[in-house]
Amino acid sequence: MVSIVLSHPQMGENIGAAARAMQNFGLSDLRLVKPRDGWPNERAIIMSSGAFDHMPAPKIFDSLSDAIADLHYVFATTARPRDMVKDMYTPQEAIELAYTRQSSGQNIGIVFGAERTGMRNDEITQCQAIITVPTNPAFSSLNLGQSVLLIAYEWIKQSGIKKPASNMQTPATQDEIRTFMDRLFIDLDDRRFFRSPDLTPTMQRNIENIFTRAELTEQEVRTLHGILSALRGNKTQK
Amino acid sequence: MVSIVLSHPQMGENIGAAARAMQNFGLSDLRLVKPRDGWPNERAIIMSSGAFDHMPAPKIFDSLSDAIADLHYVFATTARPRDMVKDMYTPQEAIELAYTRQSSGQNIGIVFGAERTGMRNDEITQCQAIITVPTNPAFSSLNLGQSVLLIAYEWIKQSGIKKPASNMQTPATQDEIRTFMDRLFIDLDDRRFFRSPDLTPTMQRNIENIFTRAELTEQEVRTLHGILSALRGNKTQK
Repeated sequence: MVSIVLSHPQMGENIGAAARAMQNFGLSDLRLVKPRDGWPNERAIIMSSGAFDHMPAPKIFDSLSDAIADLHYVFATTARPRDMVKDMYTPQEAIELAYTRQSSGQNIGIVFGAERTGMRNDEITQCQAIITVPTNPAFSSLNLGQSVLLIAYEWIKQSGIKKPASNMQTPATQDEIRTFMDRLFIDLDDRRFFRSPDLTPTMQRNIENIFTRAELTEQEVRTLHGILSALRGNKTQK
Repeated sequence: MVSIVLSHPQMGENIGAAARAMQNFGLSDLRLVKPRDGWPNERAIIMSSGAFDHMPAPKIFDSLSDAIADLHYVFATTARPRDMVKDMYTPQEAIELAYTRQSSGQNIGIVFGAERTGMRNDEITQCQAIITVPTNPAFSSLNLGQSVLLIAYEWIKQSGIKKPASNMQTPATQDEIRTFMDRLFIDLDDRRFFRSPDLTPTMQRNIENIFTRAELTEQEVRTLHGILSALRGNKTQK
C-alpha cells in the first residue's frame, strides 16, 4: 500500500486536487495531519471532482509521527535539497523503490509539507529518504496538487509493470523506531548529554537521522534496545 | 525544439497553467489556436505565476494547420483511444521519441484539444501519432493544465537537466567506523551484553550491519562516540 500524507495542508482546494490526482492514478489512502481548515472541507470536496466518492475517507491525525506510525518506509518531498544526509530520489526512482517494497508487503508513505513552507526539517528527519521533482532552476513553481499528481502518475506507470518482490526482512515500523529514539533521548538527557538547550533539537535531529537512514529491521530495533539497556542499566554488574 | 499547441482552448486559466507547467520543466514555445477569450488574457497571466515573463510570447494562429506548419513530427493527445490507425504512445514513450527526433534537428509538436471536447478527429488526423496518459479506468479526470504538466515533466526527465545531487557531507572512513565499532563492542562486552561466546560473532556482525548500512558521516561517528561516552561513562554524575 502507498499512502499519501499531507502534513498541515492549508487550502482545502489542494486537498481536493490531491485526492483527484490520487484517484486518477489508482491511489486511495490519503492521510491528513492537522488540516488548517479542519475536516471535512467543502472546498476540498468541490475541487476533487467526485474523487472522494471513489475512495475511503481521508484519515486525520494530530501529528506526522501518528500519521506514519504503521508505515515501513517513508519518503519526504522537498522542492530543494536540504542540508541533511539522506538518499535523494527523482519521483520515478522513488516510485520504483516504493513498488518493489510494497510488493514484499511493506507500507509506503509519501509526505508533502504545507503549501507555504514545505516540509519542516524535523518532519524530514522522520523519513527515510527524500524525493525532489526535477524542475527548471530558473522557474520552479509546482504547487501541492501538482506535486501529488506527478508522484501518483509515476505510480500508475510503475504499477502496470510486474516486478519480482525482493527478499527483505521485516522492516521496523516508524512507531518502533520512534519508541527507540524517545528512549535513547531520555537516557541521554538523564546523562546530561545535551548540554545546551538551544542546540538540543538540532542534536536530536542529527542523531535521529543516523537511525532513520539505516532502514532498521524489527530485529535490529530489538538489538538496539538491548544495547541501550546494557550500556545504560546494569551498573551493578560492574 | 518541442512546441506545445493548445487548439481552441476555452479558459484563460488553463492557458496560464500550461505556460507555468512548461516553464517548470524547461519548455518555452507555446502556440494557441483561436483561444476562445482572445489574447492576451488576464486570467492566463494570473494563473501563470509569472511564467510568461520567462518565455517568448505565445504565438496565435487561426487554424491547427497553420500552428503546426513548420513542425516535423506532431503528436495528438487524447484521453481515450480513438478509432483511428495511428501509433499510440504513453507520455514517456512519446517524449523519448520526441527527444531523439529533436536531437537530429526536427521540430516536434504536441497538441492538446479544447477542454470540453478534446481533439476533434479532423485535428488528430493531421498528427503523426497519439499520446494517451494512462489513468484509472474507474476515475479519469485530467484537466488541460494537468495534461500539459505531465508531458512537460516527461520532457525534463528526458532532456536530463541535472537532478539535485544528494547533500553529502564528508563520509566517515572505514577506519573511523571500525574504531567506533571496536569501542562499542568492548563496552558491551564489559557490560556482559554478549552472553554466549558462540553467538558473539553473529551478534557483532548484526550490530555492525546497522551502522555500516547507515553510511555514516565523520560528524555522525563523533556524535556516536559522544553518545557512547555519555551512556557508558559518567557514572559519577548519577
